[in-house]
Amino acid sequence: MSQSYILPPFHTAESFDKAIEDFRSILGAEHVEIVDSTKLDDQSYHDPPKTHDPFHIIDQDELVASIIIRPGSTEDVQEIVKAANRHRFPLWPVSIGRNFGYGGAAPRVRGSAVVDLGARMNKILELDNKQAFTLLEPGVTYKMLYEEIQRKGYNLWIDVPDLGGGSVLGNATERGVGYTPYGDHFMMHCGMEIVLPNGELIRTGMGSLPDKNQPTGSSNTWQLFPYGFGPYHDGLFTQSNYGIVTKIGMWLMPDPGGYQSYMITFSKDSDLYQAIEIIRPLRLANILQNVPSIRSATLDIAVAAPRSDFSSTGKPLTEEELDAAIKKVDTGIERWNFYGALYGPEPVRKVMWEAIKGAFGTIEGAKFYLPSDLPEKPGSVFHIRDGTLRGVPSTTELNWTNWMPNGGTLFFSPISPVTGEDAVRQYDIAKRRFTEFGFDYIGTFTVGMRELHHIIIAVYDRKNPEEKRRAFEMYKLLVQDCADAGYGEYRTHLALMDQIAGTYNWNGNSIMQLNQTIKDALDPNGIMAPGKSGVWPKQYRDLKK
Amino acid sequence: MSQSYILPPFHTAESFDKAIEDFRSILGAEHVEIVDSTKLDDQSYHDPPKTHDPFHIIDQDELVASIIIRPGSTEDVQEIVKAANRHRFPLWPVSIGRNFGYGGAAPRVRGSAVVDLGARMNKILELDNKQAFTLLEPGVTYKMLYEEIQRKGYNLWIDVPDLGGGSVLGNATERGVGYTPYGDHFMMHCGMEIVLPNGELIRTGMGSLPDKNQPTGSSNTWQLFPYGFGPYHDGLFTQSNYGIVTKIGMWLMPDPGGYQSYMITFSKDSDLYQAIEIIRPLRLANILQNVPSIRSATLDIAVAAPRSDFSSTGKPLTEEELDAAIKKVDTGIERWNFYGALYGPEPVRKVMWEAIKGAFGTIEGAKFYLPSDLPEKPGSVFHIRDGTLRGVPSTTELNWTNWMPNGGTLFFSPISPVTGEDAVRQYDIAKRRFTEFGFDYIGTFTVGMRELHHIIIAVYDRKNPEEKRRAFEMYKLLVQDCADAGYGEYRTHLALMDQIAGTYNWNGNSIMQLNQTIKDALDPNGIMAPGKSGVWPKQYRDLKK
Ligand SMILES: Cc1cc2nc3c(=O)[nH]c(=O)nc-3n(C[C@H](O)[C@H](O)[C@H](O)COP(=O)(O)OP(=O)(O)OC[C@H]3O[C@@H](n4cnc5c(N)ncnc54)[C@H](O)[C@@H]3O)c2cc1C
Ligand SMILES: Cc1cc2nc3c(=O)[nH]c(=O)nc-3n(C[C@H](O)[C@H](O)[C@H](O)COP(=O)(O)OP(=O)(O)OC[C@H]3O[C@@H](n4cnc5c(N)ncnc54)[C@H](O)[C@@H]3O)c2cc1C
Repeated sequence: MSQSYILPPFHTAESFDKAIEDFRSILGAEHVEIVDSTKLDDQSYHDPPKTHDPFHIIDQDELVASIIIRPGSTEDVQEIVKAANRHRFPLWPVSIGRNFGYGGAAPRVRGSAVVDLGARMNKILELDNKQAFTLLEPGVTYKMLYEEIQRKGYNLWIDVPDLGGGSVLGNATERGVGYTPYGDHFMMHCGMEIVLPNGELIRTGMGSLPDKNQPTGSSNTWQLFPYGFGPYHDGLFTQSNYGIVTKIGMWLMPDPGGYQSYMITFSKDSDLYQAIEIIRPLRLANILQNVPSIRSATLDIAVAAPRSDFSSTGKPLTEEELDAAIKKVDTGIERWNFYGALYGPEPVRKVMWEAIKGAFGTIEGAKFYLPSDLPEKPGSVFHIRDGTLRGVPSTTELNWTNWMPNGGTLFFSPISPVTGEDAVRQYDIAKRRFTEFGFDYIGTFTVGMRELHHIIIAVYDRKNPEEKRRAFEMYKLLVQDCADAGYGEYRTHLALMDQIAGTYNWNGNSIMQLNQTIKDALDPNGIMAPGKSGVWPKQYRDLKK
Repeated sequence: MSQSYILPPFHTAESFDKAIEDFRSILGAEHVEIVDSTKLDDQSYHDPPKTHDPFHIIDQDELVASIIIRPGSTEDVQEIVKAANRHRFPLWPVSIGRNFGYGGAAPRVRGSAVVDLGARMNKILELDNKQAFTLLEPGVTYKMLYEEIQRKGYNLWIDVPDLGGGSVLGNATERGVGYTPYGDHFMMHCGMEIVLPNGELIRTGMGSLPDKNQPTGSSNTWQLFPYGFGPYHDGLFTQSNYGIVTKIGMWLMPDPGGYQSYMITFSKDSDLYQAIEIIRPLRLANILQNVPSIRSATLDIAVAAPRSDFSSTGKPLTEEELDAAIKKVDTGIERWNFYGALYGPEPVRKVMWEAIKGAFGTIEGAKFYLPSDLPEKPGSVFHIRDGTLRGVPSTTELNWTNWMPNGGTLFFSPISPVTGEDAVRQYDIAKRRFTEFGFDYIGTFTVGMRELHHIIIAVYDRKNPEEKRRAFEMYKLLVQDCADAGYGEYRTHLALMDQIAGTYNWNGNSIMQLNQTIKDALDPNGIMAPGKSGVWPKQYRDLKK
C-alpha cells in the first residue's frame, strides 16, 4: 500500500508509526486520526476541515496535517506534548480551526499533527453574571457562549467577530477583533492556563495563586485581575508557538442599558480621507464607543451577490459597474459605509449622536441611517451589523467569499494610523496592486483606539491555479510595498508568516533573536507549532542553512 | 583605609575595582559614583536618595547600592550592560527612584550598581496632540510631562498616581495605578524600547518595524498599536528583571469636555460592605468612569495631621479617638470616603451622577459633596483629589507618611474581587493584625475594572528599630494570612519579594519555573536585577542551596 499520509520533517515511516502508537496509547485509537492527503475535502465554514487550509492559496495539499489528535482534557494535552517531545513530532494546536483567511486549521509545517482541542474540550467552566466574566475551554464558540448566556437569562453581552463560529479562545490568542466596546479580544481576556512545550502546566496572572476553596483551584481573582505578580506572561502566548492554551478568561460586557446602531454612507471614493480625519477625534473621545468600521462598497456588494450578477467581463468591476452594482443591491450603501453604534441610556446616546452627526455632516453627501430607515432584506449589511455591534453571532458575512466561484480568500491586514493621509496611502497601495493583478479591491478599516486594522481582501477561485498564483504573487508584493511605506501587518496567513516576520527587522531583526532565544529555552525539541509567526525552532533553522 | 562601600556577591575588592574602572571608561568618572555605606542619608521624596531605601523597614544599610551609574543614552546603557556581563556585576535599574513604600531606588541585592537612568535620560521624545500619545525616556516625571503639555497648550490629560514626582516609565513598568479613566498604566502604555541583559536592543510591538522616514526610525504606529506581529512581549518586561526599559510610549487622554469630582462619605465602618456591592455594577457599567477609591478615615486624617495631634497614648487611635479626629480635621470625611469624578459634557455627567446618587443613596447616612460644598483648606483630601482625578500632579498626600515621627511606610497590596464579602474579609484580616501589632490600620481600595487594589499601610518610626521589626513581622504574617485566604499582592517591597513570589505557587510553583527558564536564557550571567519579584538567576539559586 502506498503511503497516502504526509510524513513530518525528520521522520521515517517507522518513527512515524511509533509516534502514532504512543499517541494512541494515550488517547485511544479513535482520537488519533491519520489524514489521507489524497482525499482532501475543503468542506465548508459550517463543517470546517481539520486536515488542511480550505481556502488554499497554494496547492491544496501543501499545508496539510499528517494526523489529527483530539485530547479530552488538559492532562491529555500534557501527555500528548510529552509524547511529541519523545518522538520529536511537530504539533499544531487549533481550538476550532475556523481561522479562515489565515490558514484554517492547517499547520505551518507539512505533516504536523493538528491538535484539535475543540473537539472534546468545549466547556464553559465559569459564567459569572455578577462580575461579568467567563472561563472557557478552547472549543467554546461565540455562538455557544452567546446561547448559554441567553439560556441563563443573564444581562451580559459578548463581543463577536464578523463570523460567530470561531473559538473565543483561539480568536483571542490570535489577537482578533470584534465590534462592540470590548472589540480588542486580547485586552479583554483575563487569565490563561497553558501547557508549555515541555508538558508543564502553568496558570498566568492570579491563576498561579492557589485557593483550594475555589472551583478552579486558583484564586477567585484569576478572571478579575490580569497581571498577577512579577513578569506578566500572557502576551507571550499570543500569535506564538510557546504553548497550548487550555483555558482562557474573558471579560463580558454588562448590557449597557440602551443601544442604537447606525450607518453613515459616503458617496465618493475620495471621502475616505475626510471620514478618517473625523473618526480619529471622535474615537479618541470615546464618542465612538465601540470598534466601528468603514467598509468599501465592494465588500458590502459582495455580501449581497457574486460578481457575476454585476459584470460578465470576468474582470474587476469598472467604476461604472461599481456604481451600477451599488444601485442594484439597493441596501442604502454608497462608496464607503461606516457602521457604528451608540451604547447607554437615551440621554447619553443623544449627546453622542448629535456629536457624530455634526462631525460627519461636514462631508458633502453623507447620509445617516438607523436600521428602521431601510428595509431588512438579504444582503443588507447594515442589518447584519446591527446584530454584530451588540455581540449577536451570525455567519451571513460569509457570503462575500462567494464573490468569485469557488471563492477562497486570504486576509492582508496592515495597521494604519487613524489619519486620512495614512488610510488613503494604504488604500492607494492596495488599489494599485489589485488593479495591476486583476482583482477587485475589497476592504474594511476597523477602528481601534488609535489605529486602523485595514483588512484587505482578494477573493480568488480556488479551482483556478493561475488565479491563485496571481493572488499570492500580489500579496507578497503588498507585504513589501507596505513595509517600504512603514506599515506592518497585525496577523497573517501561514503562507506569509516568514515574509512578514522578516519585515519586523529593526536593529538587525533583534526581536526575532529574542523570539528564538525564548523558543529554544522553552521548546528545545522544537515540537510546538514550528514556524508559527515566523519563529522556527533551532532544528528547522539549521535545516534551512 | 577601611572599605566603606558594599561589595556585591561573588566580588573581591580587586574585581570590584576592575569593574568600576570599566564603567568609568565608558561613561566618564563623574557618572560612576561609589556609595559610602557609612554615610547614608534618607533625604526626602523631593530629593530622593539613589543609594538605599529611605523608608527602610530593615536596617538602613541592608538594601544598599555599591555604586550609582548614570548613563546618558541608550548606547551607554548597552555598553554598561555589556560591561556588567564581563564583570558579573549585578545592576539595578531605576528610572527616578521614587518608588517609596516599595523600596525606593534600593536594589534587592546588597552591593548592586544602581543604574540611575533618569539622571540624564529625561527627554519627552514625542508629544502628539492629534493622536494623543507620548514617547518618553525614563527620567520624565509626571510633573514634567504635565508641565510640558500645559506649556504647549495641548488639550491632553495625563494620569498620575497620588504623588506626581515619580517616573511615568518606571511606574508603568511596575504596573502602578492612577485615578483617571486611564488609571491602568500598563494597559495605557504602547510600545517599549529595551536593552536586554546581553546588551542587545529591541523595540516591542510596531517598534520592530523600521521606517527610516520617522524620527524614531520605527513605524509611525509604534505608539498607536501595542501588539505588533507574533509574540507580544511587553508584559515580560514589567515587574521583572529581563531588561532595562529605555523608552516607553503612553496613551494620553483627550480633555473629556467636562469634569466634576465628587466625594461620598459613609458614617459607619460596616458600610464598607454595601458600598463595595454598589461600586461593582456601577464600575462594570462604566458609570464610574475612572479608577475611584474608597479610603479609610485614618488615611485622610493622616493627610491632615500627625497622630500626636489626636492622641497622646502612643497607641493606635481608639474608636472614640478616631471619631474625635474625624471631627477635628473637619474636612467632611467620615469612616469611609469615596472619591470619584464624572467626565464628559454636562448631559452625560448628569445621567451618571443621578445613577451614582441613586445607588449610594441607599446607604443610610451617605453624604454627597462637590468641591464647592466644602472649604478648601490644608488637609482636605477631597480638594487634592479633585486635581488627581483629572491628572494634575501633586505631592500633598506625602503628608500621611508623617503620621508617626520619622515616618516610613511599606505598602501591602492584595487584590480583591469587587464584592462586599471579599473587601470586608481583607479589611478584617488586616485590621486584626494591625491591632495585634499595635499599628493604626490605614487603607484604601482603588477600584479597577473588576478588582480592588487594597493598599494597606502601616506608618512606622524609621528611627525605632523595635517598631520597624514589629511592622515587618506583621507584614510577613499578613502575606501568609492573605495567601491562606486566596488573596495575592499586585506588587511589593523588596523585602517581601521572595515570600510573595512563593505564594504564587500553583502546581509546584510552575510559574516560577517558567520565570527562571526565561531568566537563564536571557541573562546567563545573572547581572540584571537579581532577585527582583523573587526571580533569581542560576548563580544565586545555586548559592542558596
Ligand atoms: C468572512 C470572514 C470574516 C471574518 N471576520 C473576522 C473578524 O471580524 N475578526 C477576526 O478576528 N477574524 C475574522 N475572521 C477570521 C477568522 O474566521 C476568525 O478570527 C476566527 O475566530 C479564527 O478561528 P478560530 O477562532 O476557530 O481559531 P482557531 O482556528 O482555532 O485558531 C487560530 C490559530 O490560533 C492558534 N491557536 C488556536 N488555539 C490555540 C491554543 N489553544 N493554543 C495555542 N495556539 C492556538 C493556532 O495557530 C491556530 O491556527 C473572518 C473570517 C472570514 C472568512
Ligand atoms: C504617599 C505615596 C503615595 C503613592 N501613591 C501611589 C499611587 O497612587 N499609585 C502608584 O502606582 N504608586 C504610588 N506610590 C508608590 C510610588 O511612589 C510610585 O509608584 C512611583 O511612581 C514609583 O517610583 P518611580 O516612578 O520613580 O519608579 P522607579 O523607582 O524609578 O522604579 C520603580 C522600580 O521599577 C523598576 N524599573 C524602573 N525603571 C526601570 C527601567 N527603566 N527598566 C527596568 N526596570 C525599571 C525597578 O525595579 C525600580 O526599582 C505612592 C507612594 C507614596 C509614598
